[in-house]
Amino acid sequence: MLKKEIRVLGIDDAPFNKFGKGNVLVVGVVFRGGSWMDGVLSTKVKVDGNNTTKKLIEMVNKCRFKPQLQCIFLDGIALGGFNVVDIKKLNEQTKLPVIVVVRHKPDIETIKKTLVKINKGGKIRLIEKAGESIKVNNVYVQLKGISKEKAKEILNIVCTRSYIPEPIRVAHLIASGVVKGESRGKA
Amino acid sequence: MLKKEIRVLGIDDAPFNKFGKGNVLVVGVVFRGGSWMDGVLSTKVKVDGNNTTKKLIEMVNKCRFKPQLQCIFLDGIALGGFNVVDIKKLNEQTKLPVIVVVRHKPDIETIKKTLVKINKGGKIRLIEKAGESIKVNNVYVQLKGISKEKAKEILNIVCTRSYIPEPIRVAHLIASGVVKGESRGKA
Repeated sequence: MLKKEIRVLGIDDAPFNKFGKGNVLVVGVVFRGGSWMDGVLSTKVKVDGNNTTKKLIEMVNKCRFKPQLQCIFLDGIALGGFNVVDIKKLNEQTKLPVIVVVRHKPDIETIKKTLVKINKGGKIRLIEKAGESIKVNNVYVQLKGISKEKAKEILNIVCTRSYIPEPIRVAHLIASGVVKGESRGKA
Repeated sequence: MLKKEIRVLGIDDAPFNKFGKGNVLVVGVVFRGGSWMDGVLSTKVKVDGNNTTKKLIEMVNKCRFKPQLQCIFLDGIALGGFNVVDIKKLNEQTKLPVIVVVRHKPDIETIKKTLVKINKGGKIRLIEKAGESIKVNNVYVQLKGISKEKAKEILNIVCTRSYIPEPIRVAHLIASGVVKGESRGKA
């Protein structure tokens, strides 16, 4: 039985110009269960680049909350457009379970076709490596280093204000509010 | 009797180089009472400049949460060093009560001497205009457009995790986490 106040990390990226280059802000929010914020982390990743996995591992491993963290939530498998996260490596190098959460079942075939079209077919391997999307409660998840049962137990604790884990919902508000002047949309 | 879920705004600035020039990030957090985050606003103000009052009025008046907001919390009377807020004007032009909250009684005489020393004696008037610091619960407040009794009632709702209103505590974590890579210290 998990404590209601387990520390979890939720990660999301800020809005960015799809046709621009450069870096996009990524925000990590440390939450106690689904109820309150303990801290905020941030880093930057290259739009459509290949450095998200490395940047997230660094951000997580060097933060002072690390010893207490129980899992990492990601809002989708990529940040900054097509900067795809290697969730197996993220799990292995942080020793934390990784739970990718999305509202709708990802259309993997369309994503693969798009990647080929924009000459980023090499990223297909990462997307396949991330494993199948499975439905848990009202969201779709991809899991590394954690069972479906355990993931469901954590989701039941952290999804207090919406179907999405509270640290992801809040990371989205922060990243968009800081970059755009006012938060918009939802994770 | 106030609702437990009244919408309030808490504002704090990011860490900055005291000897540098330029702008500092300011974060506004919209909270439902002391319990959860509804949105994030942001702006920038000049370090030791004179534009904080104008920038805060703009940020508040143009945001979509404005019609529901019940009050503005500030973490101290100045942002970005000595960019002092005219809280009377902020109150008048947003039509929202303003509550400045600090943990310890401000040493006004030392602040005035410092302002004279750095050739910013003109700001002394703004500090005097802000009115006396009074003790409410475990903090010191300066009030505009609200009675001490009503301010105490709101503080009792929003101070859920510390003596400081939750939106200020969270605004501090966001501003420092986004600028420094990891949140440090407390509001």
